[in-house]
Amino acid sequence: MTSVVLLSGGMDSTLTAAIACAESDTVAAVHFNYRHRTERRELAAFQAICDKLGITKRLVVDAEVLRQIGGSSLTDEAIPVSKADLAATDIPSSYVPFRNGTFLSIATGWAEVLGAERIYIGAVEEDSSGYPDCRKVFFDEFEKAINLGTKPETHIRIITPVIAMKKSEIVKKSLELGVPLELTWSCYQSEDEACGECDSCALRLRGFELAGATDPLSYAKRPRYA
Amino acid sequence: MTSVVLLSGGMDSTLTAAIACAESDTVAAVHFNYRHRTERRELAAFQAICDKLGITKRLVVDAEVLRQIGGSSLTDEAIPVSKADLAATDIPSSYVPFRNGTFLSIATGWAEVLGAERIYIGAVEEDSSGYPDCRKVFFDEFEKAINLGTKPETHIRIITPVIAMKKSEIVKKSLELGVPLELTWSCYQSEDEACGECDSCALRLRGFELAGATDPLSYAKRPRYA
Repeated sequence: MTSVVLLSGGMDSTLTAAIACAESDTVAAVHFNYRHRTERRELAAFQAICDKLGITKRLVVDAEVLRQIGGSSLTDEAIPVSKADLAATDIPSSYVPFRNGTFLSIATGWAEVLGAERIYIGAVEEDSSGYPDCRKVFFDEFEKAINLGTKPETHIRIITPVIAMKKSEIVKKSLELGVPLELTWSCYQSEDEACGECDSCALRLRGFELAGATDPLSYAKRPRYA
Repeated sequence: MTSVVLLSGGMDSTLTAAIACAESDTVAAVHFNYRHRTERRELAAFQAICDKLGITKRLVVDAEVLRQIGGSSLTDEAIPVSKADLAATDIPSSYVPFRNGTFLSIATGWAEVLGAERIYIGAVEEDSSGYPDCRKVFFDEFEKAINLGTKPETHIRIITPVIAMKKSEIVKKSLELGVPLELTWSCYQSEDEACGECDSCALRLRGFELAGATDPLSYAKRPRYA
């Protein structure tokens, strides 16, 4: 059984890729380069993680269109990156409009060509930043759309193995499975040293704290969030 | 009310754009350049049609990823273009895996940034070549996925005004509305003069014949299909 995994290079997708490898005969990994602030660092993480997990079939997609569209601090540098507010209920400025719809559609096309039956995506609902396209209800509906919009002989399931995990559980599970967290990258703000202050750093650092573990990455600031 | 229309430059999407213009305050048009055989000609058609319809907000998306994925005679020149067989029930070689899913996802992201409430797509089900992602049942499901995967304040409808039309009805309706069919391009095989033999030319020529009209384009061969 062949699977496609979406691999950004962060912790969630890296744990997801490790799980996909354990559950599949062949895994193909796709990475979306949308030339955002930290793309260079994330692409390096993608390649290093694929090397480590033995994933040879790789697709790097130029998703420049997300910059053309804009509407997010990740793709429009005129929009400031939100400072972490883990209690906030608003959708943060880093939300990229319908990104997972676009990523999953492209992954579906590739899966159909490869004859893959599963698409793994490392979305996290419970402990996420409130992105609407990271919810189980969205993936379930999207899976239905996929199977109506592809060939009759194509049957694809969207697998979200970390969707219900808290970040601390992702850290614990990754440590348990020997997932190379030292190769991952999460910061939305910087590339050489994680900032420690953006939403993504805050979620990651809190995850490590609650897991009782220490993040192997180096941070410019390392506030306590737990 | 703002609408986004997917405009390839063919007859179906051009009639759809004209209808979108009649039903909306503002129309924004998106064209996907996937560097297929006839892209240069289609892009010229897109610009000319926008000029004619007064659409100033335009987005040309480099969808090179569809070539990376392949699996279609439109995006992989090693796969031959099927000769027209309008009685065939198989999915033709020009089917691009989950293309409309990818196009609609990108259009959704843009619509969300623009505050648009509608996405118009000129898919044709009844008289189409059997592409699974051109069916009403697919668009209805995809619309549900869109509204689960975008912000709570985003409400987008997928409008398919020509979905139930036969090609001959598209020709008649276009002539009735003064849609500039002479600016459109349909051939999948050639750019300077339509081949007259590919699926797309055959459907177009039959549509004109059944409508009792003459296609203003020039053809290398002009077989009778009706």
